[in-house]
Amino acid sequence: MVHAGYIEPGPFSLFGQGFINEVDTFTWPVRVYYEDTDSGGLVYHANYLKFMERARTEWLRRLGFEQRRLHEELGVIFTVRSLDIDYRKPAHFDDALRVSARVTEQRGASLVFEQAIAREQALEDTLVRATVKVACVDAATLKPRAIPETIKTEIANVG
Amino acid sequence: MVHAGYIEPGPFSLFGQGFINEVDTFTWPVRVYYEDTDSGGLVYHANYLKFMERARTEWLRRLGFEQRRLHEELGVIFTVRSLDIDYRKPAHFDDALRVSARVTEQRGASLVFEQAIAREQALEDTLVRATVKVACVDAATLKPRAIPETIKTEIANVG
Amino acid sequence: MVHAGYIEPGPFSLFGQGFINEVDTFTWPVRVYYEDTDSGGLVYHANYLKFMERARTEWLRRLGFEQRRLHEELGVIFTVRSLDIDYRKPAHFDDALRVSARVTEQRGASLVFEQAIAREQALEDTLVRATVKVACVDAATLKPRAIPETIKTEIANVG
Amino acid sequence: MVHAGYIEPGPFSLFGQGFINEVDTFTWPVRVYYEDTDSGGLVYHANYLKFMERARTEWLRRLGFEQRRLHEELGVIFTVRSLDIDYRKPAHFDDALRVSARVTEQRGASLVFEQAIAREQALEDTLVRATVKVACVDAATLKPRAIPETIKTEIANVG
Repeated sequence: MVHAGYIEPGPFSLFGQGFINEVDTFTWPVRVYYEDTDSGGLVYHANYLKFMERARTEWLRRLGFEQRRLHEELGVIFTVRSLDIDYRKPAHFDDALRVSARVTEQRGASLVFEQAIAREQALEDTLVRATVKVACVDAATLKPRAIPETIKTEIANVG
Repeated sequence: MVHAGYIEPGPFSLFGQGFINEVDTFTWPVRVYYEDTDSGGLVYHANYLKFMERARTEWLRRLGFEQRRLHEELGVIFTVRSLDIDYRKPAHFDDALRVSARVTEQRGASLVFEQAIAREQALEDTLVRATVKVACVDAATLKPRAIPETIKTEIANVG
Repeated sequence: MVHAGYIEPGPFSLFGQGFINEVDTFTWPVRVYYEDTDSGGLVYHANYLKFMERARTEWLRRLGFEQRRLHEELGVIFTVRSLDIDYRKPAHFDDALRVSARVTEQRGASLVFEQAIAREQALEDTLVRATVKVACVDAATLKPRAIPETIKTEIANVG
Repeated sequence: MVHAGYIEPGPFSLFGQGFINEVDTFTWPVRVYYEDTDSGGLVYHANYLKFMERARTEWLRRLGFEQRRLHEELGVIFTVRSLDIDYRKPAHFDDALRVSARVTEQRGASLVFEQAIAREQALEDTLVRATVKVACVDAATLKPRAIPETIKTEIANVG
């Protein structure tokens, strides 16, 4: 039997940390686990989309916004409208990856991100790149909703 | 177009960090993303198994062993033989979780882990607990193989 | 550009069909795709839980109940409370599997299923077996709710 | 305890069936399960890629080729090189979907597919569409390999 004592407090920094460089590109670390691979021995193509969403989620969290709160308090959710992705080189099981997210276009109810994935040991060598269009919609009706001003302001500040 | 410059070096500690307490329990932080939830609004039951394997993988990495290497150099892989899991309380989207992994039994070719999952803000409140039996097998034949001595030694030391 | 004409009507039986044998065991066919495997070359252990839930979902649909409707009309959802699973032999990419679901215990607000997975070509050879306890809960509060009488009646009839 | 007897033979047609219309478009049925949705209540965006790969896999199987065999016997695997996907309308839990796959371009070592997803009850109403470029590569080196002649011939025949 596991009792709660098995888990004890530790610094929150136990969690992965985002990183932002001078060209306003946010990056997020992702480790490749068995769950991410397929019998080809490489990361399953659809799972890179998960990695990219983790980076966008952490980029938004870094701006001070948690999507669960945005949903509960403002009734908005962000949803992927379209994406194009280019698989250049494969990532392998156990790889330590870095995923970037950078807003390249901002409209009233949507954002366009340029994202890339590389290995921690060879960041100059892009494995996967994608352009992802994300829309802000009403959680109930799924109709487009203006991106909350507070978020726009933060994007303007931090990029 | 994303060029490699979008990703720049950062401390490796960008990655999540493991934590071990005085009763030799390793814990690993896991953040809940959209990919982990289902339309019930909570973490999908099968995904807790992924979280628990991440913790076991990082526990082994902390001992100095990467499974990819074990496969390539020693020809062994660790595979789940059986598990029983108890879903006590749900985890939600955006939750910051901590997953524990503790070896409670060790045989020649298998290990038994007790694992628990809790929220970072309420570690005494176990959401999910599981007992997981992992076997060491030959990567080619999938027949049982003795756990490499080097690993046994590290487990004996660090637990 | 894909236009709607690309997709044309076909018999609904295009969908997988359930099958029930004389000992009241429902079985559901599942094909193994890349998405289900991991770099070990076999089905990833957590994904067998997905296969088993597909069988339970189709068993319930066969009784005449769609979970989405149960949620919307009766405000109840079925959630996994606990399970123990035994991984005997692995399933591979491209395997044609059959997953069974049989209710072995029924209480006011929960059901216990015995489930097994085998290859279509060797149904006598169980690869994975599990006991899964499913609870009926209020969709809003997640508190236990009595299983709707209509469902109990159908279970009593069809088993 | 589940014994093998719980699973008994049934027609192979238990499995989902493909369907091909007069404009040589293959379609494959996909049911939406909990595993496919996220806490937004809709199908998680990355999972549509899984649905589309299932359709391509079944299209190839219908031509008489199983990817596992192609890997084992010819040493080739098909891998996604790039894709662009357009999410027009969401699919929901329990939806009965149909996924199309049509080869629109064929080169020596790659194929381009146009794919669409719609609900069984409204096939004229495309929910998601994508263009997917798939490359034939050597399973060992991952270098491009000519698509086996036998496959080219079948594509030429059946389309």
